[in-house]
Amino acid sequence: MQTLHVDLGDRSYPIYIGKSLIEQPELLLKHISGKQVLVVTNETVAPLYLAKVRQSLQGLQYSEVILPDGEQHKTLTVLATIYDQLLKDKHNRSTTLIALGGGVVGDMTGYAAASYQRGVNFIQIPTTLLSQVDSSVGGKTGVNHPLGKNMIGAFHQPQCVIADTHTLMTLPDRELSAGIAEVIKYGLICDAEFYQWLDENASALLARDESVLAEAIYRSCLNKAQVVAEDEKESGIRAILNLGHTFGHAIETAQGYGNWLHGEAVAAGMVLAIKLSAQLGWVQQSDVDSLERMLRAVNLPITPPAMSQQQFLELMMVDKKVLDGQLRLVLLERIGKAIVTGDITIDDVKKVLANAGVPA
Amino acid sequence: MQTLHVDLGDRSYPIYIGKSLIEQPELLLKHISGKQVLVVTNETVAPLYLAKVRQSLQGLQYSEVILPDGEQHKTLTVLATIYDQLLKDKHNRSTTLIALGGGVVGDMTGYAAASYQRGVNFIQIPTTLLSQVDSSVGGKTGVNHPLGKNMIGAFHQPQCVIADTHTLMTLPDRELSAGIAEVIKYGLICDAEFYQWLDENASALLARDESVLAEAIYRSCLNKAQVVAEDEKESGIRAILNLGHTFGHAIETAQGYGNWLHGEAVAAGMVLAIKLSAQLGWVQQSDVDSLERMLRAVNLPITPPAMSQQQFLELMMVDKKVLDGQLRLVLLERIGKAIVTGDITIDDVKKVLANAGVPA
Repeated sequence: MQTLHVDLGDRSYPIYIGKSLIEQPELLLKHISGKQVLVVTNETVAPLYLAKVRQSLQGLQYSEVILPDGEQHKTLTVLATIYDQLLKDKHNRSTTLIALGGGVVGDMTGYAAASYQRGVNFIQIPTTLLSQVDSSVGGKTGVNHPLGKNMIGAFHQPQCVIADTHTLMTLPDRELSAGIAEVIKYGLICDAEFYQWLDENASALLARDESVLAEAIYRSCLNKAQVVAEDEKESGIRAILNLGHTFGHAIETAQGYGNWLHGEAVAAGMVLAIKLSAQLGWVQQSDVDSLERMLRAVNLPITPPAMSQQQFLELMMVDKKVLDGQLRLVLLERIGKAIVTGDITIDDVKKVLANAGVPA
Repeated sequence: MQTLHVDLGDRSYPIYIGKSLIEQPELLLKHISGKQVLVVTNETVAPLYLAKVRQSLQGLQYSEVILPDGEQHKTLTVLATIYDQLLKDKHNRSTTLIALGGGVVGDMTGYAAASYQRGVNFIQIPTTLLSQVDSSVGGKTGVNHPLGKNMIGAFHQPQCVIADTHTLMTLPDRELSAGIAEVIKYGLICDAEFYQWLDENASALLARDESVLAEAIYRSCLNKAQVVAEDEKESGIRAILNLGHTFGHAIETAQGYGNWLHGEAVAAGMVLAIKLSAQLGWVQQSDVDSLERMLRAVNLPITPPAMSQQQFLELMMVDKKVLDGQLRLVLLERIGKAIVTGDITIDDVKKVLANAGVPA
């Protein structure tokens, strides 16, 4: 087991990474301070791992909520079912919420914890690669609104994160690939050496080699933790974590949540971002080619779905990174170095979309 | 105009107290940093003051939401209408929400600001005495759940509070009295001298003498700010602000939100709390008599409505101040000195309820 300490002053917490960690109840128990717990999971994960987690929690007042599976259920209405259970079972301020599942479960449980009685503790047990490398660090929680992703939420740090690589053995292939998209992102934005390592280990990741997965998770969380430590509330540098996300969110919103996986949309979004970087003369065409090759090798999309430039632009303008009507994008100065820029015109964006085959 | 600075480090802000302050646009404008504003008010306050506030905001991208009036509308569903408007009008992270109204408008607007895009700025223009002396300080925001008051929310501090005493001239008599209940509370819990002053000025308050009102607001906010500065997230001493509230919330919940005003329930709750304090030998019967006399003088209820001891106890146990099933209450050691205690038995509570005429 590896332990990574996320350093955020009095909101610091450990991330445990390793094999079969959910079979070690003491990891979980040492981070529960009250006598009540509520586990939130979904209908896909529940049959696989809920019994094990429930067993670890014997002796505590135990409640559970099983959500429907999928991004389309990450809504205020479904969130309310968590509050309902907490109140029904009389959970007080010293309760601990436990998120067992992927990013949707983590985001919703974290936000329920942030807002229940104005804030209670929570623990994350992410069971997808995406959530292990993304939601594990940063404290972002929330739900979607029909007009935009993650528009309602809070920053709320967990007591600990337990990333059990063994849970990835049951992950569908498409979701594994989607997680690898975010892993590759960390290489692109701030760690050229890791990017190189990923290029060499792409097939081992796809083959679910647990040691290689553990290393990729550790390195991803480490990179993210360094960025977040510099900028907890996302006023500046932290925005580089959104490489590919402004384009990606537009894709997800246009397709309806749940049709394209988040990581798939980010993959196609990162290709648009690196192409725009090349168009501005910042990176080389060979960099674009290498990214496309790596994404293809792990079965990720490199072109956007059928939608118009107009649709892209409208959906991108509602993104949280738009300040006072000024479009801001994360682009690459080089592989391993992302920057946030507002020096992008609508025409620049139209041009890169046109070259990627997106019709006007 | 008096200005009170609430000192909370980088979340510090001023409270402006005085006559006709909403006719001074510069007070508002100097606390708006972006180019977008959304004013939230309700159908009662809108015809009285919305035009003036709208006029102050010329030149900014302006949106408004007019909520139905009343505590029964302080729900997740009504909250969602604020998010809808924000998204529809493409408000970004640099927007400012402005709450124009009483406690319900303030709590909901504050919580919408806390959660929209994980946190945007907000300003409070409280138009009731209760909200001027209560919601102005402390950063508590949130909505109710059918199973309990304020169960969903966040701590979120405003950029400034503008307490215009002139808005109290249009306040219904019952709401003025309800506000005075909270004012008296500050005297009881931490300021015996203020309690004495209130006893002498009760009729001037009821007669809406603006100078006396301004002084009462200033002194109430000052007392609250001192308590909150010691304990921003309510882990200890801050709980004394809830004198009368555990009983009061039980009354409000049993009656259905909106039938008893919050301040009325707190008044009857404070009487139960001081009677329980007397029962334990902490205060004198003469203190109980003086409080009952003062409350009666400002037209506040001193006995609970028709409900059973069982109902009281059940509703009190779901209160946020219940830790691990242990009932904790705020009681008075003496006039001007409240403490939080867990040394109360169910029988103690039953006895004080029985003596107050509440049937088993």
